[in-house]
This record gives sequence, C-alpha cells and structure tokens, in this order.
Amino acid sequence: MSLRALALASLLSTPAWAQEVTTARLDNGMEVVVIEDHRAPVAVHMIWYKTGSADEPAGSSGVAHFLEHLLFKATDERKAGEIDRLVAETGGSHNAFTDVDFTAYHQRVVADRLPLMMAMEADRMNDLRLTEADIEAERGVILEERAGSVDADPQAIAFEQMQAALFLNHRYGQPVIGWRHEMAALDMADVLGFYDLYYSPNNAIVVVAGDVEPDAVIAMAEEHYGPLPAEPRLPSRARAQEPPQLAERRVVYKDERVAEPYLARSYLAPPRDAGDQEEAAALVYLSWILGGSPYTSVLAKALTFEADVALDSWADYLGTSLDHGIFTLGILPSDGITLQEAEEAMDAAVAAFLEDGVDAAQMERARTQIEASEIYARDDVEGLANRYGEALATGLSVEDEQAWPAILQAVTAEDVMAAAQAVLDRDRSVTLWVDSDGEAPR
Amino acid sequence: MSLRALALASLLSTPAWAQEVTTARLDNGMEVVVIEDHRAPVAVHMIWYKTGSADEPAGSSGVAHFLEHLLFKATDERKAGEIDRLVAETGGSHNAFTDVDFTAYHQRVVADRLPLMMAMEADRMNDLRLTEADIEAERGVILEERAGSVDADPQAIAFEQMQAALFLNHRYGQPVIGWRHEMAALDMADVLGFYDLYYSPNNAIVVVAGDVEPDAVIAMAEEHYGPLPAEPRLPSRARAQEPPQLAERRVVYKDERVAEPYLARSYLAPPRDAGDQEEAAALVYLSWILGGSPYTSVLAKALTFEADVALDSWADYLGTSLDHGIFTLGILPSDGITLQEAEEAMDAAVAAFLEDGVDAAQMERARTQIEASEIYARDDVEGLANRYGEALATGLSVEDEQAWPAILQAVTAEDVMAAAQAVLDRDRSVTLWVDSDGEAPR
Repeated sequence: MSLRALALASLLSTPAWAQEVTTARLDNGMEVVVIEDHRAPVAVHMIWYKTGSADEPAGSSGVAHFLEHLLFKATDERKAGEIDRLVAETGGSHNAFTDVDFTAYHQRVVADRLPLMMAMEADRMNDLRLTEADIEAERGVILEERAGSVDADPQAIAFEQMQAALFLNHRYGQPVIGWRHEMAALDMADVLGFYDLYYSPNNAIVVVAGDVEPDAVIAMAEEHYGPLPAEPRLPSRARAQEPPQLAERRVVYKDERVAEPYLARSYLAPPRDAGDQEEAAALVYLSWILGGSPYTSVLAKALTFEADVALDSWADYLGTSLDHGIFTLGILPSDGITLQEAEEAMDAAVAAFLEDGVDAAQMERARTQIEASEIYARDDVEGLANRYGEALATGLSVEDEQAWPAILQAVTAEDVMAAAQAVLDRDRSVTLWVDSDGEAPR
Repeated sequence: MSLRALALASLLSTPAWAQEVTTARLDNGMEVVVIEDHRAPVAVHMIWYKTGSADEPAGSSGVAHFLEHLLFKATDERKAGEIDRLVAETGGSHNAFTDVDFTAYHQRVVADRLPLMMAMEADRMNDLRLTEADIEAERGVILEERAGSVDADPQAIAFEQMQAALFLNHRYGQPVIGWRHEMAALDMADVLGFYDLYYSPNNAIVVVAGDVEPDAVIAMAEEHYGPLPAEPRLPSRARAQEPPQLAERRVVYKDERVAEPYLARSYLAPPRDAGDQEEAAALVYLSWILGGSPYTSVLAKALTFEADVALDSWADYLGTSLDHGIFTLGILPSDGITLQEAEEAMDAAVAAFLEDGVDAAQMERARTQIEASEIYARDDVEGLANRYGEALATGLSVEDEQAWPAILQAVTAEDVMAAAQAVLDRDRSVTLWVDSDGEAPR
C-alpha cells in the first residue's frame, strides 16, 4: 500500500468528545478520514470536494450547484438514476449539498456496502457522461428550485440582496443557487469546465464514519480512488479577497408578501482559521449571549422583557468557512414598533452590553449550552462525519476540529468582549430592513 | 490595399455637427476611424483597446491601469522613456487613460509626424519587454497614485464604497485603479496575461482626427498595424451582468477629514445602446433638468431658492458605457440642515417633479444647453476623436455617434418623464451619506 502519509491522531488522553480519527493521503492527493464509531453497524461515506460556489467563474453563478444535480446522471458504467436505486437497495439513504466552499455527497449504509459506495463515487468523479438533454432537463429543475426556494420567498430574496451588499469583492456575495439570468445561460461547456477541473482526487476528501476499521477503509479507498489521476491544473484556493470595508451599508427590501417586518444586521467576522480559532470561539459565545436564548439573552432581556419592542430576537455566527465569517443580529418588532424604533433599541442594547460586559452567570450559561451543543453535534455518526468534512473542506485540519471543543471551553468573558469590540463595527456591516409597505423610506 | 471593408459615412445632407468620418477594417480585425478636420495642421492619433477594468480577472483589480503605466517601458525596438522623448521632439503632447470599458493612448502632433506615432504604437502593441524591475518600480507608482487619489480623499473613498454597493454582480463595482491589496499582489504573470490577450489589433481601434486625408491614413494604418497578428483567443465582451436589483441600498461613510457633509444617490440606468439611444438621450435631459443648472434646475429651485436646504445640488448621467449607465443626484446641505432633512427635501422635490412633469420653458432651456454642449464637445479635434473612440469602444457605431445629436434634439418632455419614472427606482439605487461625525447612525 503506497500511502504518502498515514497518521493516527488523538489516541490517548483525549477528552470524551474526541473521536478516534485516522487520516491518510493517497498518492493522487486525495485525503482519507476515518472516524471509528462502533455504536451501530452503519457507515457514513462522504465525498467532499474543496470547491463551492465561491470558486465559480464570474458570470457562471450556480454552476457548482448545477453540477451537483448532474452528478446523478449517467456515467461510463452506470445509467442515470442508478445511484438512487443502488442506495435504496442497500436500505440506506443519500444526499448531496453545495455551499460556498464545498460540494459534498454522502450515503448512509450498512457498513458492508461501503465498497459499493466507493466504486460509485470513484466512477462519477471521473466518468460522468452528460448529454445535452441532461443539461436542458436539469437546468429546468434548478430554475424551478430557485423559483420555489428564493423567488417565492421574500426573506430569501432579501437575504440574497443583503448578502450581495455585505461583500464588496468576494464571491461570498453571490448566491449559491445562482442568479437566475446566469443559471439560465449555463451550458455543457460551463459544467464540464467546472467538473474537469475540480472533481479530482487531489481536490477531494473522503470521510468514512461508523462501524469500520481504519486500515480496511484506507485500503478500500486506495483500491477505489487510488487509480484516479490527479488534476495538474487544479488552481489554488486563493480567491479575490475583500478590500477594507469602510462604510456601513443598509438594504431596504419591500414586498407585499411580507407579513411581519423585521430587521437584521450582518457583520463581516473572522472565520475559524487553522491553528487560530480563539476569536471564532469567542464569537460563538457572543452569539449565544446576545441572541441565543429567547429568555436570557441580552437582546431578549432588553427588547422583550424589559421593554415591549421585540417579539423575537436572534444572533447567529457562521464561522466555519475558508475566507470570511458572518455575524448576524436580528429583531422581529412587536406590534406598533417601527423598524426604526426597533433598530434604535437594538443599538442601545448592544451599546449597553459593550459598556457593561458579560455577566458571570450569563457566561457560564453560555459555556454549558455550547458544551451541550458540541456534544450533541458529535453524538451521531452523520453529525461527526459532517463536522470533520466541513472543517477539512474549509481549510482546517483534523487537529483543529479536535481542538475546537477545548478552545470553546477556554473562552473567557474578556475574550468575548474583545471579540465583540472588534466585530461589532458598523463600517463592516449591512443592516437589512424587510417590510411590506410604506414605513421604510422609498 | 487589402481592406475587408471601406465605408464612407455621412457624406451629404448632414447637419453642421456631423463630421466626415471614414472607417475601415484591416484584415487582422483592427478598426480604423479617420475624422477630417482641416482647421489646424495637427493630428490626434489614438489607440483604443476595447478592454478596461471591467474585463480584469477576479482578484486582479487594477491590472488594466497598471498595464497602461507599463506601456511606457521598453519594447524590442525602444528603450523605456523613449516615447516621452519622441513625442516631445515633435512638439506634441501625449497621454493615456484607463476606464471600465477601455484603455486609450493618444498623441497630438503635427500631422506629418503621424507615421512615427503609428510605428510607436504598433511596436508597443506587440513587443513590450518588461523586466521584473519595471514591475516593481511601477507597482510602487500605482500604489502611490492610489494613496494620493483615493486614500487621501474621503470623497474618493466614499465613492469607491458606494460603487461597490451599487453593483451586486457586475465588475463595474470594482475601482478602476484597483483595491490596494490586489494591486500590491499584481505581478508579471498578471500583466502579461492581460497584455497578451487584449493588446491585439482585433481588439483595437485607431482613431486619427485632424488635418489628414482618409485614404492616406488608412494606407498608413495598413502599413504599420496591418502586419500585427490577430489574437485568436480574444474573448467576447460578455461580462457577468447584474441580477434584478430588488432592494435599495444605503452607504454611510464617516471620516473626520470631511468638512462638509453631503449625500448622493446613484441609480442603475440604461446606457446608450447601439441603435437604441433614445432612453439614454432622455436621461441626458433629465440630468440637466433635475440638477444641471445652479439657478434653474428642479433641485436648485426647490432646495436652494424656495427653501434654504441645500448650498448646492447636482445631477449626473454616465451613459456611454457597454453594460450599465449610472444616474446620480447629489445634495450639499445648508448649514444646520441634517443629511436626513436634506434627503427628505430631495425626495420631496423629485416626487413633485414626477407628479408635475417638465415645465415647457425648462425643457427648451435644456434643449439649448444640450445642443450647445454637444457642439462644444465636437469643436476641437481632440474632443472629436475622443467622442468617436469612446463610442466605438463601448459598443456603439460611427452611425450611432453621428445620430446622437439628432436623437438628443428629438427628445420630448414625455420621453423625459417616462425615463424618470423608469430610472428613479429606489430598488435599483444606492444612497450615500458622507459625514464627519455623529449625525448618521453608528
């Protein structure tokens, strides 16, 4: 077995939430990650391509997601639809998803069906046989998907317009599903250009989690994926980065379908970076403390309990990404409260928080909640595979992912306040108002 | 003389402002435009490359402008700096400029020096010899230029942030000079990649205006530019286009260096399109009527004379571009008037205008002013060459440019109001507030 590297990680003296994770790299550059979990006789098999919508050429938004659909068409060896049948016959389930940084395919099957899944994924990594009819038909499907998931939903439209305003230069501002006019123009050349470049073993990670033995899985990966040739033209993941954001932006979206006006503010934030996850960890706390609970969070207390300004409030931090994280606050105003009043109240609550700091009891509640959610996310073989796959596809290592729970537990109140001061900068934010009618200025 | 096409345009029965323009196309695809103007024994020679900053690869903002600087370095035949000397020795002047859609080089010389200029431009179109030292030195120069023209100027910074928010997808949102972090990373490969692809006769227009004979100029162009090989890989000019803009945006820029707060609102607008310039012509009127005069325009009357809200107000329409035009309104508030108050007053003035329509006297004043400015712009050989070069480099034809004054004169008050209704749509706009301190919300 000609493996370039074979590393066993986290064998001894690891906390309860650390799993036995074995990694290897095939000669063609493909990464193999095996997570042992013998609680049930199932295996999750995932292929993560380290390419997502943020890697699309300008003008081809949606091609990454389009290709995800097309990967269920025929290959040299299999007819269209055969993958569905294959997985169904094993009694398993399968799925695929596209995001800004990655595209992933996964199956959950009884462990002894693993070779079949690997044969299937290896086949479609290299030997997809698309016809013009496939392109035509599936383009209709993705356009329908956009119609249903975005165009029919005022919140999704507003989010898309906001996201485009949050980024001045980076492709994270473009929707994963694509802009309709560009989706409608995607053709065979766009799809194959993307497929030929990025669906390659040196751009892929195979994650296998469940009732498996690492050596056997690595040997199996070597057998199925080892023969695939590396793509020599694979580009680096260096994308166009944001310039300094120096001016706050506001987006006002009006749509008669909006039943309840709301506002949200997204700030550009640091993501989890390899070997440097402390600020991201502090931002996880910040989102819990500001808006993670409908009863005890800073926004809920100030806007719902101390004053009747908000029916609901929330905070959210997206940090597992290659280039930028996003920190978002949101308010659903109470009846009779304007968006302007709600925003002023939110600003006042955030300003008071920045002034007063974190309450010790609040900090410990957040710590407990975060620990619980981390344990919960790892308590299931599919969740585990997802965590490692997503981490590796966004520039982190197995060690980073394993260190994450401990880094989270080590966050102090001072870290949270320092992160809040750094990130809650209006110059690096977009404020969105979503309304049905005349309140917001036209 | 093996010319593929040779057309004489506008020979007879043309109004006074139409010039004798002769066009030809060389076998290698290069367009030749000759504008006869025998009022003085000078000639203007311009090379227009139909490529500007909007054609740059993602992540390489500024490379078009960087290359413009580097075109004054050595070639196979000439040493760095020789072009300056050459033009100076003729007693002429020269210049170069980069914009979103084109990069242009021009010289104004005594007419008999034309062959020398053509030899020089043909040489540097194909035979630039850059060294790493050139790249290093000139990168320093463009970074200094950015420091002086953008970073030192709050208005320029604000404009840049606003422009990025005006476009959701199109590269018109990126600054022509480039984002500093991308400029700092531009290297020889970026520059040569751009040069090899775009500095090619099939992507170039030579415009010669002045005391010249068309046949002689075309023969001369054939001699100097004819031998240059066409670039077979030249891409089409299809760039990523805007999705529907559905939500208005606002940008707030604060900078202690701002002495006088002001606001501006830019709307996405149609550009002059080949064979379809009527709406653009109406927008030229709209900008004159709303903000073209400090005494009689709609904004000046409402905000400066009827109320003391604005010290100054303006309107501007940029319509000569390939993909999108931009229509902008601006207000400099009077002392003691907040940006919020000024914006509300501007909105009210625009709403009243949309309600009331154009006053007949106002319409005729605009007609006279526009005619005068069109005559003025053509009254000078350099201005003429510029008009045709810019038109051809942004997708218009010689005929479109010649038809433009008559199309402008044919605009009616109804056309202006229809264009106003279509373009003054807040969902397709960005409103910018530039302030020194605390008024705008933080």
